[in-house]
Amino acid sequence: MTGAGVLDCREALEETRGDFEKAIAYLREKGHAEAAKKSESAASEGRVEAYIHHGSQVGVMVELNCETDFVARTDDFETLAHNLALHIAFAAPDYLTRDEVPENVIEEEERIYRKQALEQGKPEDIVDRIVEGRMEKFYEQTCLLEQPFVKNEDKMIEDLLNEATTAFGELILLRRFQRYEVGS
Amino acid sequence: MTGAGVLDCREALEETRGDFEKAIAYLREKGHAEAAKKSESAASEGRVEAYIHHGSQVGVMVELNCETDFVARTDDFETLAHNLALHIAFAAPDYLTRDEVPENVIEEEERIYRKQALEQGKPEDIVDRIVEGRMEKFYEQTCLLEQPFVKNEDKMIEDLLNEATTAFGELILLRRFQRYEVGS
Repeated sequence: MTGAGVLDCREALEETRGDFEKAIAYLREKGHAEAAKKSESAASEGRVEAYIHHGSQVGVMVELNCETDFVARTDDFETLAHNLALHIAFAAPDYLTRDEVPENVIEEEERIYRKQALEQGKPEDIVDRIVEGRMEKFYEQTCLLEQPFVKNEDKMIEDLLNEATTAFGELILLRRFQRYEVGS
Repeated sequence: MTGAGVLDCREALEETRGDFEKAIAYLREKGHAEAAKKSESAASEGRVEAYIHHGSQVGVMVELNCETDFVARTDDFETLAHNLALHIAFAAPDYLTRDEVPENVIEEEERIYRKQALEQGKPEDIVDRIVEGRMEKFYEQTCLLEQPFVKNEDKMIEDLLNEATTAFGELILLRRFQRYEVGS
């Protein structure tokens, strides 16, 4: 084999490897998406929990889902549902995930942070990074799954749910929540 | 005064009376609307109440408003809030008032009722009245304020609220409600 021949061969091999990796990545993503979809529809058991606070001036209702009636009836599952409702009463999230934040809200937040940074005389080239950092903080304050848990701020609410999924051995999902505050 | 003169005078008087009555009606409506608006904004006290039913498979949360903290703290007010939540758990309304029913839902219901009536061979000229009657039934089944109260079907939920407004001597409003059913 000539030097050029070896080089061609290597290139061809690398190209094939690239395609192979892409194919694996594709199948993996597809598999994950399907598994996630299947699991979500499987998580149709669970319980509704309410928490009323502060002389009935604040109320929260959550629907926590799991896959079996057996898990739904356990004390640990009830405690988790209660803790989530209590957290929401205190932390007052506006959304479940950052995907739910409306585009116009994101644009308005970014506009304000950009304006503030420019007014503080920050150079143009780091303003983007400042805005990005402030937006992360905004999501952490307003999106339930990203909020630090009020009873243990080292954990995000998403961590609580992931830990529960591992502990119960089935998917645990917070499907929806509502928070009412009198006169607000 | 001639006969014709008397007639002219009467006509003119009646016309003036008509205008006068219209003006009074206008002022009354305007006054009512303003009073209603003022009262609604005044009804900013109240309480959030939750009702969890059927092994935590159904949950309801309501915000019941009144004008003073004093009324909000009474047992009767709490009982009314509880009864409303309990009613919603059982009667599962989709809307608070008929104004909230989306236009496309109304159109679809009307279309179905019209088709059914025509298929049953009803004459064209009474189909409109049949559709109207069925729509009234539809509102009664789906709109909370028009539903018969589960504990006393002689009363609509709106009657309960009007009676409470009279009894407490201040506006009592059901501001919002939410009903969760696991897996639905």
